Amino acid sequence: MFRRKPRLNKSTSLKSREAKISLDIAKEVTAYADVAKQIIDLAVYGDARNRSYRRLADFTDTIGNRVSGSKNLEMAINYMYKAMTVDGLDVHLEPVKVPHWVRGKESAEIVQPRSKNLAILGLGSSVGTPPEGIQADVLVVQSFDELKRRGSEAKGKIVVYNQPFVSYGETVAYRAFGASEAGKLGAVAALIRSVTPFSINSPHTGLQDYQDGVKKIPAACITIEDAELMWRMAKRGEKIVVKLTMGATTLPDADSFNTVAEIKGWQHPEQVVLLSGHLDSWDVGQGAMDDGGGAMISWEALSLIKDLGLRPRRTLRTVLWTGEEQGGVGSQQYFNLHKVNLSNFDLVMESDLGTFRPVGLQFTGSDAAQKVMAEVVKLLAPINTTRLEPHGEGTDIYPWMNAGIPGASLHVMDSRYFWFHHSEGDTMTVQDPHEMDLCSALWAVVAYVVADLEEMLPR
Amino acid sequence: MFRRKPRLNKSTSLKSREAKISLDIAKEVTAYADVAKQIIDLAVYGDARNRSYRRLADFTDTIGNRVSGSKNLEMAINYMYKAMTVDGLDVHLEPVKVPHWVRGKESAEIVQPRSKNLAILGLGSSVGTPPEGIQADVLVVQSFDELKRRGSEAKGKIVVYNQPFVSYGETVAYRAFGASEAGKLGAVAALIRSVTPFSINSPHTGLQDYQDGVKKIPAACITIEDAELMWRMAKRGEKIVVKLTMGATTLPDADSFNTVAEIKGWQHPEQVVLLSGHLDSWDVGQGAMDDGGGAMISWEALSLIKDLGLRPRRTLRTVLWTGEEQGGVGSQQYFNLHKVNLSNFDLVMESDLGTFRPVGLQFTGSDAAQKVMAEVVKLLAPINTTRLEPHGEGTDIYPWMNAGIPGASLHVMDSRYFWFHHSEGDTMTVQDPHEMDLCSALWAVVAYVVADLEEMLPR
Repeated sequence: MFRRKPRLNKSTSLKSREAKISLDIAKEVTAYADVAKQIIDLAVYGDARNRSYRRLADFTDTIGNRVSGSKNLEMAINYMYKAMTVDGLDVHLEPVKVPHWVRGKESAEIVQPRSKNLAILGLGSSVGTPPEGIQADVLVVQSFDELKRRGSEAKGKIVVYNQPFVSYGETVAYRAFGASEAGKLGAVAALIRSVTPFSINSPHTGLQDYQDGVKKIPAACITIEDAELMWRMAKRGEKIVVKLTMGATTLPDADSFNTVAEIKGWQHPEQVVLLSGHLDSWDVGQGAMDDGGGAMISWEALSLIKDLGLRPRRTLRTVLWTGEEQGGVGSQQYFNLHKVNLSNFDLVMESDLGTFRPVGLQFTGSDAAQKVMAEVVKLLAPINTTRLEPHGEGTDIYPWMNAGIPGASLHVMDSRYFWFHHSEGDTMTVQDPHEMDLCSALWAVVAYVVADLEEMLPR
Repeated sequence: MFRRKPRLNKSTSLKSREAKISLDIAKEVTAYADVAKQIIDLAVYGDARNRSYRRLADFTDTIGNRVSGSKNLEMAINYMYKAMTVDGLDVHLEPVKVPHWVRGKESAEIVQPRSKNLAILGLGSSVGTPPEGIQADVLVVQSFDELKRRGSEAKGKIVVYNQPFVSYGETVAYRAFGASEAGKLGAVAALIRSVTPFSINSPHTGLQDYQDGVKKIPAACITIEDAELMWRMAKRGEKIVVKLTMGATTLPDADSFNTVAEIKGWQHPEQVVLLSGHLDSWDVGQGAMDDGGGAMISWEALSLIKDLGLRPRRTLRTVLWTGEEQGGVGSQQYFNLHKVNLSNFDLVMESDLGTFRPVGLQFTGSDAAQKVMAEVVKLLAPINTTRLEPHGEGTDIYPWMNAGIPGASLHVMDSRYFWFHHSEGDTMTVQDPHEMDLCSALWAVVAYVVADLEEMLPR
């Protein structure tokens, strides 16, 4: 709207009203200091100490990893349904169709200039090779730009990407689009340096994305070490031949479920604060970090609140997504189904960057909502996790945030997350019971207090 | 000798003579400041910049790993013989009989409570299993003490050691003796947590040692992650069954060689300063760190001295040991053969703890020799590597040090050495060209100056 003249008086009165609201909200939130302390004490020092870690260990040790479409994921959903029901929560499942990619047997080796096995992990959605494998000369490039410049050399070759790691957000483009970019130039397969800053000869898998109209060629990640080895060989002018065999195949979409557990609000049961993590993982390691930890603290938060006999005004709803690793399939279907109730979603929360030592929250919301959250995180002073930073993150809550719903993600200290991400190294060994207690406490305090405030967060 | 009265006069005169010698040696060593600077400039900033790294990359990329008795080790020795000859050094080979252990195919999996592959590396000298493998219940222990306490449970079982990592020196006992300790109690195999402080599901191999008179059972290392997993399962009271298949076998001792390159001394050619690293490695990774780097800087040091047209009073001798990983076999045979000339060995040097950023030297020698070396390391001020710490280290120089010869080892900064040690992660990726230049410069300055001083190091 275009305004002809400044309306100072109104603006001034608006400011003073805002100041009044700020004062009110500060007062309202401060009143939760005692209950926040109770939650923290229970989680960190009380009977619930180490519980989210123990639950995660029991779960991932029993089930193992849980890729979309697998028997393991089905078992995992049943396991969590039962466990949360036994815990006294109100649990139900919501059906989701998920992709069903199967790795099959896979191997790769350098045949020339000398024989050497390559540690590989085929990429989700990749096609396989013929049963006898593909043997071809290698073209090593360090970037998409170099591939473009040397486009005429790619035909009939296996393209090896030895791109440096800049950040996950930036470098993951090679994993996502490496196959199609090579396929456009007539390459027969793509081997991509794993998207990680550190390696002990450890390959990392993940989703890749074929472009429409481009020939689908097999794609796998290799280790930093082997990508650098082939790059050095190529620089010396050595001819490199690789044999790649992948049994990967995509089956029809499978039946799966988002797992939903609730504590119903006493005053506004239709209004919701949503906590979440994803139950599916890749088919390597234990999926303990990505995202067993996020799922477990989202359950644990409800357990803590229930154990203290608390019940907020609004409903607390924990959703354990399915099919996240396939591009947020479960959460997108959930959004499509529930967006009719958009106005009732107060806050959506997601933990999917590790449950390591927490420092606070990342939050997306209006300035007015930021002010409320700034008060809420002050309640976390006893565990020194009071940072509030902009931009909630997470594949599974973006649809809601994009629709204007406030979104919060767990903010943990700089960690070795991407060292283990999507690799055999994603196991219980990277998790710490005390750090998980702190995450659970933070998660529970934020969810409970926001769900119990007189008003929903301002949009 | 018992003395009735103190002999003050003699003692005083001794002290003043020592002070005089100290002054003299300081003066003598200081005179090498210019030549030290020349060596450093050539190695770090001059034509030799990155050369030891490039040589190491060419060598390990071309040959790969080089386990005792293998064709690769034979190729490696030929490669180095030729390369050092082409470099203008005086090279010869000295025959050594080395153990010839062959890994064969190997695999392991948890069969119960759920199916899971285990990443393993069989241990050097281990026997194999029958071709169909061994399937047995598992006993998990955290220490030799616990194994002793629960001795009656071990019979017929696969013993899994989940010992914490304390230090390599202490914890390696589990790798070395785990099989025999379990075998004494009637266990059928031993799986030992890899001896490393950090893992991305990475198993580490190494030598193990059967005790005489104890039944030889197969022994392999598993990962930290899998050891902890089985430990948690056992704590929950779950029955664990593992299937282990190892094709390991020991063939008759093989022919091998220590590779020796020299710059002959102009004044005392029979007197020797010996620089060394070992050429053999385990049969995983590239053996770049353990101990390609140590071998390469021991060659590079001679190249630098030769390139500058320098020739010291005494002979500089680089020895690239064979069979180190089998318990210092090459170096022990070398000692046995050359100990008749014990009095002509001035200083023995070894680099086998990584060629990472150097800080100085570790040195074993008399107080008088320490004083000389304290002056020598001052020459390294331009590259800030002037630390002199007690106790030279290294499997390959212990025989000499035990016989009273001064010994020095390369002292590098606290590193991630044991993260990669004896694993697939020991590759060129962990090496840095500049750090190798610094190591080479240090190595060359120390060797040259000691070899050129008027007197041999005092014993």
